[in-house]
Amino acid sequence: MSARDPDCPLCQTDGGTLLWRGPHLRLIEVDDPDYPGFTRVIWNAHLAEMTSLSTHGRDLLMRAVYVVEEAQQSILAPDKINLASLGNMVPHLHWHVIPRWRGDRHFPDPIWASPRIAAGAEPAEWSERQARVRALLPRYRNRLVEAMNALLWH
Amino acid sequence: MSARDPDCPLCQTDGGTLLWRGPHLRLIEVDDPDYPGFTRVIWNAHLAEMTSLSTHGRDLLMRAVYVVEEAQQSILAPDKINLASLGNMVPHLHWHVIPRWRGDRHFPDPIWASPRIAAGAEPAEWSERQARVRALLPRYRNRLVEAMNALLWH
Repeated sequence: MSARDPDCPLCQTDGGTLLWRGPHLRLIEVDDPDYPGFTRVIWNAHLAEMTSLSTHGRDLLMRAVYVVEEAQQSILAPDKINLASLGNMVPHLHWHVIPRWRGDRHFPDPIWASPRIAAGAEPAEWSERQARVRALLPRYRNRLVEAMNALLWH
Repeated sequence: MSARDPDCPLCQTDGGTLLWRGPHLRLIEVDDPDYPGFTRVIWNAHLAEMTSLSTHGRDLLMRAVYVVEEAQQSILAPDKINLASLGNMVPHLHWHVIPRWRGDRHFPDPIWASPRIAAGAEPAEWSERQARVRALLPRYRNRLVEAMNALLWH
């Protein structure tokens, strides 16, 4: 059912720390020191674009993206949430869900732009905020698992 | 019905060349010399996140994003399509739908990264490709309008 590409890292590995896996998709915690809570929603099969999926598949995938957005909003309370499906390097359908804060290293630019603040030069305020976000991650992970299990996955 | 923010450019203006407008959302052509076909889907009301919308609203908005993706795919035939809802600068819900080609100025990076090719230093091959894409834009715009009109907007 799930076609695999031997050269695709998202076919060969989970692509990060696995938070939840279902028959169609999985949630991954991204190991990015600047962005605690950064999460990916990865479609299990090797497809490139949203419109490569059936209408039902698109809806399933976006429901998972909204679950992540809601959990970030209610537990991590970021200033903004960024959603992106790019896949230029790895054309295997996956969504980045990124909590953003005023004062983070790239704000208000996208995280792919050159950082406005050099690594290590973050103001104390932002480091304290990051520490508070990190302390909330266990609750955030639990919420994701509960919310994903509560969806009907058929 | 549609709350407006006096400081929000997407409340005060269309935000680009209007391609199609409905009661809930509009399609805008982005004037970006590097990315012919770059299109935005903008929710008319001032809301920040996908989960600020009702389930029905989210589905409507994503159906419009898929219409744009499908029109890009079938008419412009890019190597990849990038989807992003960021809104850090303008927290008014809008989607970027960006056709990408191997050899474009940022490929395979996101368009917000530093370009790999300086402006004006593009290889002839890429300039020719851009010209071919530009020649397809009238067909692309027509397809968008037809496809949006064919959706049931209630």
